[in-house]
Order: sequence, then structure tokens, then C-alpha cells
Amino acid sequence: MTIKVGILGATGYTGAELVRLLLRHGEAEIAAVGSNNFVGRRLSEIYPNLKGIFDMECVSQDAVIDCSDVIFACLPHGLSQEAASKCIAAGKVFIDLGADFRLEDEAQYKEWYGGSFEDHVLHSEAVYALPELFREQIVGKKLISCPGCYPTASELALFPAIKRGLVETDAIVIDAKSGVTGAGRDHKPFAECNEGMSAYKVAQHRHTPEIEQTLMKAANKRIRLTFVPHLLPINRGVSCTCYARLKLGATEERIREAYEDFYKDEYFIRLLLNGETANVKNVRMSNMCEISLHIDRRTGMLIVTSAIDNMIKGSVGQAVQNMNIVMGLDEKTGLDYIPPAF
Amino acid sequence: MTIKVGILGATGYTGAELVRLLLRHGEAEIAAVGSNNFVGRRLSEIYPNLKGIFDMECVSQDAVIDCSDVIFACLPHGLSQEAASKCIAAGKVFIDLGADFRLEDEAQYKEWYGGSFEDHVLHSEAVYALPELFREQIVGKKLISCPGCYPTASELALFPAIKRGLVETDAIVIDAKSGVTGAGRDHKPFAECNEGMSAYKVAQHRHTPEIEQTLMKAANKRIRLTFVPHLLPINRGVSCTCYARLKLGATEERIREAYEDFYKDEYFIRLLLNGETANVKNVRMSNMCEISLHIDRRTGMLIVTSAIDNMIKGSVGQAVQNMNIVMGLDEKTGLDYIPPAF
Amino acid sequence: MTIKVGILGATGYTGAELVRLLLRHGEAEIAAVGSNNFVGRRLSEIYPNLKGIFDMECVSQDAVIDCSDVIFACLPHGLSQEAASKCIAAGKVFIDLGADFRLEDEAQYKEWYGGSFEDHVLHSEAVYALPELFREQIVGKKLISCPGCYPTASELALFPAIKRGLVETDAIVIDAKSGVTGAGRDHKPFAECNEGMSAYKVAQHRHTPEIEQTLMKAANKRIRLTFVPHLLPINRGVSCTCYARLKLGATEERIREAYEDFYKDEYFIRLLLNGETANVKNVRMSNMCEISLHIDRRTGMLIVTSAIDNMIKGSVGQAVQNMNIVMGLDEKTGLDYIPPAF
Amino acid sequence: MTIKVGILGATGYTGAELVRLLLRHGEAEIAAVGSNNFVGRRLSEIYPNLKGIFDMECVSQDAVIDCSDVIFACLPHGLSQEAASKCIAAGKVFIDLGADFRLEDEAQYKEWYGGSFEDHVLHSEAVYALPELFREQIVGKKLISCPGCYPTASELALFPAIKRGLVETDAIVIDAKSGVTGAGRDHKPFAECNEGMSAYKVAQHRHTPEIEQTLMKAANKRIRLTFVPHLLPINRGVSCTCYARLKLGATEERIREAYEDFYKDEYFIRLLLNGETANVKNVRMSNMCEISLHIDRRTGMLIVTSAIDNMIKGSVGQAVQNMNIVMGLDEKTGLDYIPPAF
Repeated sequence: MTIKVGILGATGYTGAELVRLLLRHGEAEIAAVGSNNFVGRRLSEIYPNLKGIFDMECVSQDAVIDCSDVIFACLPHGLSQEAASKCIAAGKVFIDLGADFRLEDEAQYKEWYGGSFEDHVLHSEAVYALPELFREQIVGKKLISCPGCYPTASELALFPAIKRGLVETDAIVIDAKSGVTGAGRDHKPFAECNEGMSAYKVAQHRHTPEIEQTLMKAANKRIRLTFVPHLLPINRGVSCTCYARLKLGATEERIREAYEDFYKDEYFIRLLLNGETANVKNVRMSNMCEISLHIDRRTGMLIVTSAIDNMIKGSVGQAVQNMNIVMGLDEKTGLDYIPPAF
Repeated sequence: MTIKVGILGATGYTGAELVRLLLRHGEAEIAAVGSNNFVGRRLSEIYPNLKGIFDMECVSQDAVIDCSDVIFACLPHGLSQEAASKCIAAGKVFIDLGADFRLEDEAQYKEWYGGSFEDHVLHSEAVYALPELFREQIVGKKLISCPGCYPTASELALFPAIKRGLVETDAIVIDAKSGVTGAGRDHKPFAECNEGMSAYKVAQHRHTPEIEQTLMKAANKRIRLTFVPHLLPINRGVSCTCYARLKLGATEERIREAYEDFYKDEYFIRLLLNGETANVKNVRMSNMCEISLHIDRRTGMLIVTSAIDNMIKGSVGQAVQNMNIVMGLDEKTGLDYIPPAF
Repeated sequence: MTIKVGILGATGYTGAELVRLLLRHGEAEIAAVGSNNFVGRRLSEIYPNLKGIFDMECVSQDAVIDCSDVIFACLPHGLSQEAASKCIAAGKVFIDLGADFRLEDEAQYKEWYGGSFEDHVLHSEAVYALPELFREQIVGKKLISCPGCYPTASELALFPAIKRGLVETDAIVIDAKSGVTGAGRDHKPFAECNEGMSAYKVAQHRHTPEIEQTLMKAANKRIRLTFVPHLLPINRGVSCTCYARLKLGATEERIREAYEDFYKDEYFIRLLLNGETANVKNVRMSNMCEISLHIDRRTGMLIVTSAIDNMIKGSVGQAVQNMNIVMGLDEKTGLDYIPPAF
Repeated sequence: MTIKVGILGATGYTGAELVRLLLRHGEAEIAAVGSNNFVGRRLSEIYPNLKGIFDMECVSQDAVIDCSDVIFACLPHGLSQEAASKCIAAGKVFIDLGADFRLEDEAQYKEWYGGSFEDHVLHSEAVYALPELFREQIVGKKLISCPGCYPTASELALFPAIKRGLVETDAIVIDAKSGVTGAGRDHKPFAECNEGMSAYKVAQHRHTPEIEQTLMKAANKRIRLTFVPHLLPINRGVSCTCYARLKLGATEERIREAYEDFYKDEYFIRLLLNGETANVKNVRMSNMCEISLHIDRRTGMLIVTSAIDNMIKGSVGQAVQNMNIVMGLDEKTGLDYIPPAF
């Protein structure tokens, strides 16, 4: 039976990409798309790539919730809590692509996002849904919080090494790079991005506590790490280069074994061979994550590079992956895209 | 029953893209990939995007033909004739993505490509396979010649207006622009393409007689047109802006009606509304062709702009579309890709 | 003696680029920069490339005029007339980079720009200042109207052939392509330009009557031509491909001779050899214009391609070139930039 | 008196860019350009941007040395030693843009480059010429070894903090990003770089010991650091994000003071304010280096980002800066380029 899905905040980049994936999902159909500012207008007016393919008009948030079994929320932070509350009350599945339910600690949420948890019961029902790390906890849940793009790439890169106790966790550095769609529709005009490259929000990006929260679960202890994002003049992709000091005895073989074992059954993880490095080019337009392992013997450092498509594995692809888990479908349903060579 | 397909010349850009499409076709499976220079090596060594997804080793041309029912040839011009001969003799379907069978007139072939027709019977069995224009002639054929990328975009743009006698055919100008993959793997290094733009092979490109051949079928008379290609610093896409003088009485309404009628049942043609213009961005990664119609009343000129993804509708997508027709499948099978917004 | 120059509308892309050139001019110094919305703020707050190099604060229009001998106006159309009036009344030189004084015929101005000539005497004193075509008329003038970017590239490409009577003028087609800075700061975000390409304002662009006006001076008769601009995902550059039917007897030799003769003393014109084509890459960051000549014998068509940097030869470079002429300086002063290879 | 300069290895990207700068230097003239493979051919055949501007033919290495007072060597590593030997013997100034004289320790050179020092006296006469750090040592020297691009950006970013003892030096991480010209002419075709991003030579890049060598001079003790370069799909620019643990008492004020003091008289250093980050866009096409300082209080980390144009400050601009110093000219001569806004 086809799943009826609705999208809140469908007119942003995330919504447009989610529509593209859901239209070819196979087991789901889009029942409604919601918008605050574009009610009555077609999504294909904003995204001409959809003309003739998806010309549904936007409706109100309540209308979306009414006619859907699964609701995806692509809303600015702070706005998902109320929507989630309604959906859960109505017995629907709520899949949040925003940040409202990512942090478990309200103090952290207040510090980094400036808001508070409106309903603590609701928050306690949410699951942080990075399937490769927390699949079992997702099954059976109704309030699904999808990780951010940087956290997805960073956590997949570092989790196995920390979980197996192979690296020190007191001085982790994550140097991350993202294409412009990571910032949504509001990024700068072409000529001011093109041929440029810079860091931004140095050591102040809101994804920092989220990454720490997940890696602390691997470490079973407090972690404070340094996270610096950069903006790349490309459309899609997040690339992370992660640095952590090796513990004594953490040989190349043990490191590799840890990752191979950890990800051996993961369809969407491509663990590269020695000498290869993760490249956003090789995962673009797919739900895959490339990971490469490097050891700097001179300095005793483990370097892990990872690459994802920020809009797919870093956002809507992972959201669909979570829907598949929750609805009991094959996790790959509608997600077996092959990255193109160019 | 699954169709067994083989690819000759699989290591070029065309081969790599064809593999990507065929792996998700649904009714076909790749039986073998062929190469002259890479026998015994995996395609995924050359195209790391395919790692873990398609790690088949390349074999010889004969080995490919032996185990396949349908053979796609992605070979440099001049090399398809012998391969076609073998395939046809063995009762296989041969789908050529090269230029060997595109021109019907051997004199033209000699003039523009410098070779001759090795087997005239073979050539007489070939069909020029642009489905939206010549669908009926493709059905039942075994030797399928796929159009070039520029011809696909140009012919789809101009055929209806000429067929309906709405424009003069004595001074047609086609100003075409292509992304770098149009030139295959041998194009210039990044820094020498990026931020550049120029015409090339001005009025000397080999696609010229091919476009003329098709448009003459619409006009029922001789056509000589001016064709100028340009290189764009983007990966994919062909955009054509076509200029033809309007005949007396060719009103905007009649022009639009002609195109609407001509393409009314065509899934892959997106005829734009007044005021819209074709953009390669809106068809990238799909088998679609966007067409927009413009009338310059001041000069009495019809201007048609068209846009395709040169690697899909301009190459492997159209080849698969032709396979679907020949094999009696739904023409859209494995081709219903939605262009992404970015 | 150093020339004191002022810039009106300095906060747009044109103003920022003009500042860059004037700071290294050698014979001029920037006395003031003007803005409506940014009075009291530094240009280097908006353009961080200028930090520490040019930190002057913006002042009002009147303040700019007061302290300058030469005023460059980088204003939206409609706003230059009043400023010009003030400057001319005060005995200053006014160099307009906008469109207010480009068209000589008020009816045309009304049709294409929707405004009227506020002061006919003022308009009669303006000179259309494309130095390579109208140098003598610029000398001694005080009200200088600089050509648009598309007109600069188009007129330089076609003027010699028309002037020498080598081509028919009844069916000229100009297919033009521009980088995003041609649209100023208001162009679309990166992800919606990047990897895209489309025509826009097909046969409706305001530069059309300007090109016609100049070419009519070469032809000594009425010209209506077809002009179609396209947007390229590059920062800088305008490339034009111009099509005109050859007259009888217009041989390749005569065509080449005409251009060589016409441009033989022009420092900023690079007339390419047979077989070469104009590329924006080879003129970027310079005041040069590349021109290549091509004859399509099959169709009797002359094809001329031209390339300029839209921000320099197509805008502020040409404006400085005009200042040099008016002020009696060597025309190359401050303009001998060499295009970089990459 | 004009300085006669010659260029060895003029046909690479470095040579082409050096020609562009030297032609507008003011106090130097290019006497000869050398090449192994292109003797008798014009540089402008390879670099069409130079057509009509610099059409000198390439000559042999010996011919270049004969007619020049200052010789710039843009040669692959291993080939500069012999050329330097000849030049020094002939009393000329030799400015090496390659790696042969950068490392002082022959063992390091052997380990990282696989060669040996052919002439130890010669090596002892060479000076590592990063003017902002070692200006006094450059004066009066004849054998000038210019730093690599990554080392220039990295050393300028970290030297002051280490020199003043404000950071620990045992776990420095440098995450560096470069445009494609850093790899010279041999980089991959457009479609295989564009929209991609990856690390390469992780912890194995030859610039590592060079950076360590310089920073050890600041620290007065042994340093082993982790260096990971990445390839960006842009033409020009190197961006480094450097991580070092703060020592106790190293407040934000002391850090800023150290950098302000260290660079207070440096024309080419743009030290950014709090909240700003270095962007390659803001230094492109110039000899400038942008540096921004960031403190991560949560982790006690100093983060310094730096940005240069790899072809200018990271290569030929710095070489010309060194020539200016050696020849007693104003250091800015021919180098006061302003980065464009786009």
C-alpha cells in the first residue's frame, strides 16, 4: 500500500530535492506540499526543473498534515516543534529535517540555537536518526530527527575509531567543506562565490554540539572538539577531513579492521582502499558516503576523510532512508541512485 | 525476460554514463563491457564513482558480442561498421552511438568524415533514430543509428516549424553551445576551460550535414544552414538557439499550435510557455528536451531555443530510448529521471 | 597634474571595478565616491577585496560633483540625466556608464526604456563614445556616453564589414553570451546559475536599438537586426557570434583586408588569424577585444566572433579610455592590463 | 637602468604568469624565455592570451642565461641545481621557483624528493626567501629559493604565534586547499575536477618538511606537524586553516597583538579583524596574503586561516618581490595589483 507523504516547507532547496526523490520512490506518493508564503502556487513556478512533472499547488501546514501519513518537515529551526506536536497527536509519523530535535540537552539547545524545548515529553520521544549508527533505535519510532549534513559526514567518519577506543578524544579537529546549497536559497550571488573559498563561523557553527553529542555516545565520555566549516564554489557536497591522535597500539590494520567490521553490511557506505581519498564527486546525486583512512606515522595522527552529497545523504536521502526504516520497507527503496561520473 | 546488453568502447565518457543508466533500467542487464585498451581492468578503476556498484572487468569486442542480445557501440567514428556487420550477421540488435550510420549519402560521409561506406547493404538497413521524429521507422529495426547531441537539440527545435511550412529554409542559423563532456575525455585541463567561452569549428562541424539531412526531410527540399558550436565551462548540456525567417502568415498562434500538436504526446519534450526560455539546468541529468518559441516581430524571425543533457537525451538516454522501442518496451523504461533543481 | 575623479553609484559592481582601475591609473586620483544608500560607509565594507587599499567613505552625489573634475556615473537608467545636467552646468566632464544618453532618438528611448529626454540640449551635446569607431567625435566633448557591453562587442565585430559594404544588412543575427556580472549585483544565487545556460529577453533586450543605431551609421541605411543574449555561468566576459550574408564579391581576402585596415592602429583590438576564434578567456581582466573572421562558403555567410571583458572593455575600462581621450592623455594610460592565462 | 631578466622553463603555467608580471614591472625587461621542448616557438602559441603582447620565441637554457642578469627558474625539481651552478658561476642572480634549494637538510631532501645535493657549497649559499619572515637574509644574496605555495600560506599564518611562544607546537594541523593551477598544466580535464573536492597525498605532501623547517626556526625546537592538502575546482588560490593548541595565558588580545606587531609594516599582509575570515577571492590576482585569527575557547585552540593567490604570492609574485629586494628596488615594484571583486 502506497504511503501518503506530505512536506512542510516545500519551497526551500530541501523541499525541492525531497519532491524529486519521493516522486520516484515507488512505495510513497506525495499527498500534499505545504508552504507559508506560497499557498496556491505551484512548486514548479519556483523550480522550473519540475514543470510538467510535478505541478501540485502548495497548501497550508494543516492541510498537509490532514492528508498525509508521514510528514517531512523542512522548516527553519524553531518551527518544527509545534508541527511535530500536531502530527504525533494525530498518530502520524513526523520526520524532521531541521534542528529542533537533534540536541538531547536543552541547555545545549538554548546555548547554540537560543530557544527552549516546548514539550519535554515530545523531545523524549524523538530519535536522532543516523541509520548506520542508530538503526535499531529508529525502528518503531514516530518522531524522527534527521542529522545535519556536517554531522552526518563527521560522525560516520569518526564513530568507529572512537567506539573501538583507537583514538584520543581530547583534541579532535574537523575541517569541513560544503557546497553552497548547504546554506539554502539565501546564499550569495554567483560572482561572489565563484572562484572563492573561505572558512565561516569558525568554531561557532551550530552543528558542533550535535557532532559532540554523537561522538560522546561512542566514547562514553565528554568530548569537546574543534569544528571549522568552509564554503566551496560547488552546488552539492560535504567533505570532512577529521584529525584525531592515535592511541598506543592503534595500528593501521586495527583501524582498517574496525571500519570494515563496523560498516560491513552498510549499502550506503563506501569504505575506500589504502591510497584512495574520499571525493564529493564520487558520491554526488546519491545517498552514499565515501570514507578513507589515513595514518600519519610521523605525528601519530589518524586522518579520516569523508564525502557525501549534502542534499541527499546529508538531508533528504537520509530522511527517506529513515522513512523506509520506520515503515518497514527495504532501506534502499527509492535511494539506489548511482553517482554520475561527471 | 531480462535483455542482455553489451557495451563496446565502454571506457569513454559515453560508456560510463550508459552503464549508470543500464544498471537501473529494470528490464536489461549488462552482460559485458568491452574495451580495446583496458581488457582485464575494471571500469570502476577508471570511474571511481562506480566502485562497489559495478566492478565488472572489460573484455574484448568479440566477447561482448557473443554474450549480448543488444550491443551498444560507443566507438570512435569509422570503427562501428565492422562491429555492426558482425552483430547483424549474428542476429543481434546493434545500437550505434557514433557517426558511422548517421549520414545516408556516402558522398557527404566522405566529405565530412573522410571515410567510405564499407557495406552498402548494411547502411541501407540502418535507421536514423530520433524517436520523436522517426519513431515508426525505428520499430522492428536491428541497426539503430543514434543522432549526435547537437543534431538532437537542433532537429527537435526546428522540425515542426519546417514540416508545417512556417519558416523559410534558405538562411537558417543554429548557434549551439555545449558543455565539455561533448568532447569526451580529451578536453582541456580545468584551468584552460574554466571562466572561458568560445566558438570552435565555426561552420565546419561534422554535425552540420546530419542536421541538414533531417531538416530536408521536413522541408522536402535541399537545405544548407549555418551551424556554429561553442564550448561552455559546464559539465553537461547542449543549448541551441535557432534562427529562421517566418513565412508570410506564420503567426505566433500558428507556430505555437504547430509545436503543441507535433509534440503533444511526447513524454520527453517540455514545450515551454510564452516568455520562458530553455535552460540546460532544467533538463540536466534527465532525458528531457526543453523547447521555447520566440518571435521577433521587428525582423520577422522565428527563434527557437532548445536544451538537452548532451550525455542523456543527446547520447545514451536516447540510445536506451531506442532500445526500448526496438525491444517492445515502454519507451520511458529506465529513463524517467527528474532533473534536479541544482 | 593629477585629474580629480568622482564616482556616482560607486557601490555597484561597476563602481567597485572602476575604483580598482582608477587607483592604478597614474594620472588620476579618486576624490570622492558617491552612494544613495551607503553614505558614511566604506566601499571596503561591501567589497572586502578593497580592505586596506581603499577605505574611503561614500558621500552624497552633490559632494562627489563638488570635488571632482571628471565624474563617472554608474547609475540605474533614468538617473544620469539630472546628474549630467549639474555637472555640465558646473563645467565638469561627465562620463556616463548607463543608458540615458546612448540612444539619439527619443522615440527609441521611450519605446525601449520607457522614459523621455528631460533636456534636449543636453542630449544633443552627448557623444556615443566607442573610441575605436568614433574617436574623433569624442575629443573635446564633456558629456560622454559609454556604450553597453553587448553593443561594444557587437559593433566592433560588425562595423568594418558593414562600413565597407561587404555584407547585406537586412538579416543580421547576433547571438550574444554574457557572464553574470553583466546583470550587476542582483543576479541569482550560485546554485541556480552554476551548470546552467539559457537565453533571456529573446529579441527584447534594450541593447538592440543601440547596436542598430551604430551599425546604421556604418551602413547609411535603416537596420533592424535580431539580438539574443544568453547567460553564462562565469563571472566576466561577453562573447558575440554575429551572422550576416556576404554580398557578391565579398571574398575572404577582402573581408580580412577590411578588418586589418580598419583596426590596424588599434591597441585594444586583437584581430585573430584564420582558424582562430575569439575567447573571453584570452581577454579577461583586460581592455582588449578579440575578433575572429569566418566565412561559411556553403551558405554565403560571414560569421564574426568577438570577445571582451564585460566589466572592462564593456564598461569601466572603456570609460577610462574615454576619459583619457577627453583629457588629452595617452589612450592606454592605466589600461595596459595583460589578460592572465587562467 | 632596466634589469635584464630571463626565464627558464617558461612554457609552464608559472612561466606564463611570470611573463605577465614582468612585462608590467617597470624596472625589468624580459631578455629571453627558455624551454626544452618549444625552442623556436612563441610562448603566445601556447598561451593565446599573450598574442600580440608577447610574441618572443623560446630559446635554449644557455641562451637565456647568456643575455640575462637575473634568471628565474620554473623547472621541475632536480633540474635547477645545474642551472643555478652555471648562473652563479657567471655572476648572475638566480631565483628558483622550484624545490631544489628549499630544504636545508640533505637527508630531508633525499627522503621527500629522492635526490641529493649536487653541490654543497652552492646549497649553503642559497637563501629561503619568504620576505615577510626572512627579509634581511635575502638582501645581497644571489641564489634565491622561493617557497612553495602551501608553505607560503602556512608559514605566514603560524610564524608569529609560534615565534612569540603562544601555542604548543607538538600537534599542529594544517588543512590546506588549492586551486588546480597548483598542479601545473598536467591536472585533470574539466569534467573530472568540476563540482568535485577531495584531499590528496594525505600526510605525504612534499611541502610538509619545508613548513616544518620554517616553523622550527620560530620555535627553536623540532616540529612535526600534520599537513593535508585538498584540490578545489577553482583556478587560483591557496587557503590554509591552521590549528594549534593555545598555551596557558595566550589570550585573544596577546594573539592579536603578536600578529599586528609582526606584520605592522608589511604591505602584502592583510590582517583581518575579529569576525572576518580569509577568502581566496579577496586576494586573487594580487600578491597579498589575508590572515584571520580565531580562538576556540571551548577547546583551547588557535585557528588561523590564510589565503593567497597560489600563482602570485605563492609563486611568481613572491619571486619578483625577491628580485626587488636583491636588486635594491622598492619591494612593491610591479606588484601593487589590487584584487578584483569578482
